[in-house]
Amino acid sequence: MIIVLRSNSAPETDTQVCEALREAGLSSQVVRTAQHRLVVVIDDASGLPSHLFSRIEGVEKVIRVQAQCPLALNSNDISLRFSNGAVLGGGAAPVVIAGPCSVEGRLQLFQIASEVKSAGAQLLRGGAFKPRTSPYDFRGLGAEALEYLREARQITGLPVVSEVMSAEQVELADSCVDMFQIGARNMYNYELLKEVGRSRKPILLKRAFSATISELLQAAEYILLEGNLQVVLCERGIRTFETHTRNTLDLSAVAALKNMTQLPVLVDPSHGTGRPELIRPMSRAAIACGADGLLIEVHNDPCKALSDGGQAITPSVLTEIVRDVRAVYQACTQDQKLSTCTASLQPASV
Amino acid sequence: MIIVLRSNSAPETDTQVCEALREAGLSSQVVRTAQHRLVVVIDDASGLPSHLFSRIEGVEKVIRVQAQCPLALNSNDISLRFSNGAVLGGGAAPVVIAGPCSVEGRLQLFQIASEVKSAGAQLLRGGAFKPRTSPYDFRGLGAEALEYLREARQITGLPVVSEVMSAEQVELADSCVDMFQIGARNMYNYELLKEVGRSRKPILLKRAFSATISELLQAAEYILLEGNLQVVLCERGIRTFETHTRNTLDLSAVAALKNMTQLPVLVDPSHGTGRPELIRPMSRAAIACGADGLLIEVHNDPCKALSDGGQAITPSVLTEIVRDVRAVYQACTQDQKLSTCTASLQPASV
Amino acid sequence: MIIVLRSNSAPETDTQVCEALREAGLSSQVVRTAQHRLVVVIDDASGLPSHLFSRIEGVEKVIRVQAQCPLALNSNDISLRFSNGAVLGGGAAPVVIAGPCSVEGRLQLFQIASEVKSAGAQLLRGGAFKPRTSPYDFRGLGAEALEYLREARQITGLPVVSEVMSAEQVELADSCVDMFQIGARNMYNYELLKEVGRSRKPILLKRAFSATISELLQAAEYILLEGNLQVVLCERGIRTFETHTRNTLDLSAVAALKNMTQLPVLVDPSHGTGRPELIRPMSRAAIACGADGLLIEVHNDPCKALSDGGQAITPSVLTEIVRDVRAVYQACTQDQKLSTCTASLQPASV
Amino acid sequence: MIIVLRSNSAPETDTQVCEALREAGLSSQVVRTAQHRLVVVIDDASGLPSHLFSRIEGVEKVIRVQAQCPLALNSNDISLRFSNGAVLGGGAAPVVIAGPCSVEGRLQLFQIASEVKSAGAQLLRGGAFKPRTSPYDFRGLGAEALEYLREARQITGLPVVSEVMSAEQVELADSCVDMFQIGARNMYNYELLKEVGRSRKPILLKRAFSATISELLQAAEYILLEGNLQVVLCERGIRTFETHTRNTLDLSAVAALKNMTQLPVLVDPSHGTGRPELIRPMSRAAIACGADGLLIEVHNDPCKALSDGGQAITPSVLTEIVRDVRAVYQACTQDQKLSTCTASLQPASV
Repeated sequence: MIIVLRSNSAPETDTQVCEALREAGLSSQVVRTAQHRLVVVIDDASGLPSHLFSRIEGVEKVIRVQAQCPLALNSNDISLRFSNGAVLGGGAAPVVIAGPCSVEGRLQLFQIASEVKSAGAQLLRGGAFKPRTSPYDFRGLGAEALEYLREARQITGLPVVSEVMSAEQVELADSCVDMFQIGARNMYNYELLKEVGRSRKPILLKRAFSATISELLQAAEYILLEGNLQVVLCERGIRTFETHTRNTLDLSAVAALKNMTQLPVLVDPSHGTGRPELIRPMSRAAIACGADGLLIEVHNDPCKALSDGGQAITPSVLTEIVRDVRAVYQACTQDQKLSTCTASLQPASV
Repeated sequence: MIIVLRSNSAPETDTQVCEALREAGLSSQVVRTAQHRLVVVIDDASGLPSHLFSRIEGVEKVIRVQAQCPLALNSNDISLRFSNGAVLGGGAAPVVIAGPCSVEGRLQLFQIASEVKSAGAQLLRGGAFKPRTSPYDFRGLGAEALEYLREARQITGLPVVSEVMSAEQVELADSCVDMFQIGARNMYNYELLKEVGRSRKPILLKRAFSATISELLQAAEYILLEGNLQVVLCERGIRTFETHTRNTLDLSAVAALKNMTQLPVLVDPSHGTGRPELIRPMSRAAIACGADGLLIEVHNDPCKALSDGGQAITPSVLTEIVRDVRAVYQACTQDQKLSTCTASLQPASV
Repeated sequence: MIIVLRSNSAPETDTQVCEALREAGLSSQVVRTAQHRLVVVIDDASGLPSHLFSRIEGVEKVIRVQAQCPLALNSNDISLRFSNGAVLGGGAAPVVIAGPCSVEGRLQLFQIASEVKSAGAQLLRGGAFKPRTSPYDFRGLGAEALEYLREARQITGLPVVSEVMSAEQVELADSCVDMFQIGARNMYNYELLKEVGRSRKPILLKRAFSATISELLQAAEYILLEGNLQVVLCERGIRTFETHTRNTLDLSAVAALKNMTQLPVLVDPSHGTGRPELIRPMSRAAIACGADGLLIEVHNDPCKALSDGGQAITPSVLTEIVRDVRAVYQACTQDQKLSTCTASLQPASV
Repeated sequence: MIIVLRSNSAPETDTQVCEALREAGLSSQVVRTAQHRLVVVIDDASGLPSHLFSRIEGVEKVIRVQAQCPLALNSNDISLRFSNGAVLGGGAAPVVIAGPCSVEGRLQLFQIASEVKSAGAQLLRGGAFKPRTSPYDFRGLGAEALEYLREARQITGLPVVSEVMSAEQVELADSCVDMFQIGARNMYNYELLKEVGRSRKPILLKRAFSATISELLQAAEYILLEGNLQVVLCERGIRTFETHTRNTLDLSAVAALKNMTQLPVLVDPSHGTGRPELIRPMSRAAIACGADGLLIEVHNDPCKALSDGGQAITPSVLTEIVRDVRAVYQACTQDQKLSTCTASLQPASV
């Protein structure tokens, strides 16, 4: 932490700031430059709020040097191995997770599950509890859907990912689901993050559409701090002024995250674009910039879907995406240097 | 709902779309313009998702005409009357709600409560449960803080506002709090909205920093639908590219909301700007554009605050703000036409 | 400038950075903290690009302490006095600048000019050259409009503000216009900024809808550096995700700018909201947070306007706005402490 | 155009709106739905501003159905062939344009030009006139740089791209440059767009960092309308709340543009990310989602660059990028279906 004093501040401001630091148990050193006096904190000040010093008369601003999410930044290389042998992260070939936005019925789910499996998906997604902007929209079948997911897993062998929105739902879903999804709307729901942090299952943590990269990592930190190290990050589009696409898929964030953390990173091009015709090219791009896998909404009859049908693709398009994604992954890894390309450059700071 | 067909779509597309509408129980009419064919839905289509039609071959886009929050838009004029006689909304003079970001201790709270009351605040705010971006930050005293708030209410007579983040907290806080606050991070937490919708207390609903005006109204709709009509909206800054201020306080949204709904609208200039020197001018501006009141963080010693001390003001600045706010309110209402100024213009649509 | 070295960087990195600084003629001091080594530059490094050091192996980041617009931040208190006695800035009562978006014809202009004068406006605005997003829209009458503006000034005595977009237009407009306007789309047009910096007329510089406060001040710096100190800043809405309003009027930026610079600050609620029903409340709010005046689009028959008719107000609404604005200004200044309210707080840094 | 009347509007509103349309020479048809009355304009209303109708008492809103850039949307498939045989667009293999941000000197330019050629670049970029946010930064060598670019072209055979910011610069650069670049800051500079529209050279039009896809196409329309059909679009990052990257590279816009227009689309990962370690992965991603080429800043000694050195890569990294890009392009085209993948889906509307 560096505390910048105003050029016209009283001479005793230095003493006052250093004194406040000493009270907090921290040593410091004053440096005078041509335009400012700087109080550099020598000890680790990461636990202290900036305003302890920013509100002292004569202080211009407080600069933090250190990141706030040590566990997320320094995690070991994580690769998750699922019951069907699928491996996510750690440089493994991309994993495709696919399925309907909402579980709409037993047979519908079984049909889609079997089709996405044939298309090459390795995990099944399907919403039991659906957060919806409008209270008049379909909100999911709830516990009933969880049962169908459990059956679909038995039938197809595909591990299941499904969203949970409360402690109660975590408990309900525990026996039916192989990876809990925290949706974009709940990335800031810290009670829920702590809850899933106490579970033993991998957590798919989606970036809120208004979250910075740093906030996403801090949300992951909440889970990691509880002892659950199986956190998978997912970029799914951020909110910008552009309205042609539902969100703006921030693939630079994927490349940046791959440089900053060892946690696996997925991309959800369905929510990221909201347009079915963009999902195939953006799936290719996601893998090309280093994503460890994809999360895609698939429906056998998008026109009839009860939620988000506007962005669902059919199983036959999924087949093409899986083929594309493998080709792009190979192109990017055939040259061994490719996989280590960023290593020669310096890792980024938060 | 209007369904626009591509100019080069097959002639049978009309029939196909009309057929899909008929299946959904809706009548329609086709209109041919110089460039397009339009299928206009005659019956109320608000319950139907757009993708039922957007995914039909030959459909260019689906336009929704109707808003999705009838209760919020057509609510009666609501004015909330609190135990100490304070009246919020319905054209009443602005209400100032003030207090510490977090309740940090018993005596601290009593002191601040008594000082904000002297300064002219009519309700007391204070956080018991604190959502924090970093898991390493102070997260509130929890149930203990609720007890202190109850005592502070007894001592000062000020009704109490405090944030709740889960069903469990709603229950815990019920006897200590006069208005539940739903924080910006939980505006999309629909389970929680339904929970407080079932309570009998007024709900202070803060706009998420990434929410459109329409989404804020739809969040209110979740609460209203459960039967709780005492919803107070609160603008607290949205996230934009500007970094000088913590958020961008969107006062146009306040003026727009006052035109669209009868629900009371508050402004939180503390989170909206994140800078203590801007809170006084923005408080005046909030009242000048029609806000029904203010929510302000006050601390007796901002440098020592355990959370958000960077934006807290002191009780003496609050005294000045209360004086300003009254003067501005009078200036805006002395001319009787002022209070009805927007009535002569047409109300806005969502 | 402070250069942060990575904790795991080679010991000789310090030397290398200090050497690079010495080559640039700057002395420095190394400070070791618990987590980092910092190289603090002692001399004024404001002329040096960060990448001289950021690209050195082992450097984590480069922090700039100093602002880049000394003239804008340290300008003397400027108040502009126009030929008709109107005074803009320096704490004077708010000035209202009003008129049509585009000059559409001789008589139309004369009529509106006379009506806005009766309504209480002190300057006349009117577009001769119109930048339009679509090339199919009306682009202004050009030189012909300038003649009409000159005549309107003679008839009404109102000084004239009009937008220029090129050096050629500056020359053409010179004898007809009392203040040149640089539109939002041209705030980054540095050639044009230098051009008007060489003129003797006051410059109304609008914030680009994507510009940070700091970039606006740096654009002003371009003009100030050429020797023209009569720069008036204008907030006119920034681009955000909100679509209900045309832009998001950033009044916090107005309060912030009034704290940072002595240059006068105007607000344009017409472009800021794009909705006629919001212009009156936002005009009041602008004055309440410290703006020195308003820029408002007025048309005698908005339905027939050739450009931006959707947001124009009529002269009769302008009359009410002028009355409101005076009442709000008095409310904010009657208490002498009000005008100096922010002085007791510390001025902000960029 | 569809005009929506308020449900509570007077019955004569229909007549009034239809009358206003008739005056404008347009026929219309009224449709009554369960909640609204709609006036559907039958004739082409693309030349009329919405406010002709939006300001009529009783009108709720005006919906435009039609896009405003017919030339950009309906252009024929354009592929540009340069003097050295490089082909840009029309499905050709990706073109890499590389070179220094600014031309800093004669020998520096020759060295970089020769190195980027060896690395596989097919066109040379280099700035003669540099727009800079701060007036204190290096603004380019101007006409002198143009001479060096002409010489570099002679020596290497690489066609040259350079930015122009005024009519005067267009004239100066004409004999030295093979493609004029319109920078992001000038995308809204309509005078300049018309100027280059009258030239015979291809125009590289960069998206403003605040521009929607629709605005980018409308800017292209300005150039196309003047008769210059050789327009190349370039995505270079948009401004969002994320600060880790300099901008947010919007690759979805690339995929969307490839669906909407036949104009070639480039990606500039240098400005798009501002971080050298992200340029290689984002270059791969750009090609994977369909970009026709890349625009990359290369410097032989980034630490010493006079502008934007923080994001420049070295020629050796460029070599790796060219190799990657070819591999990814092949992976995406080896399966013939890939190149036509989006054709099976419906093209998007603006």
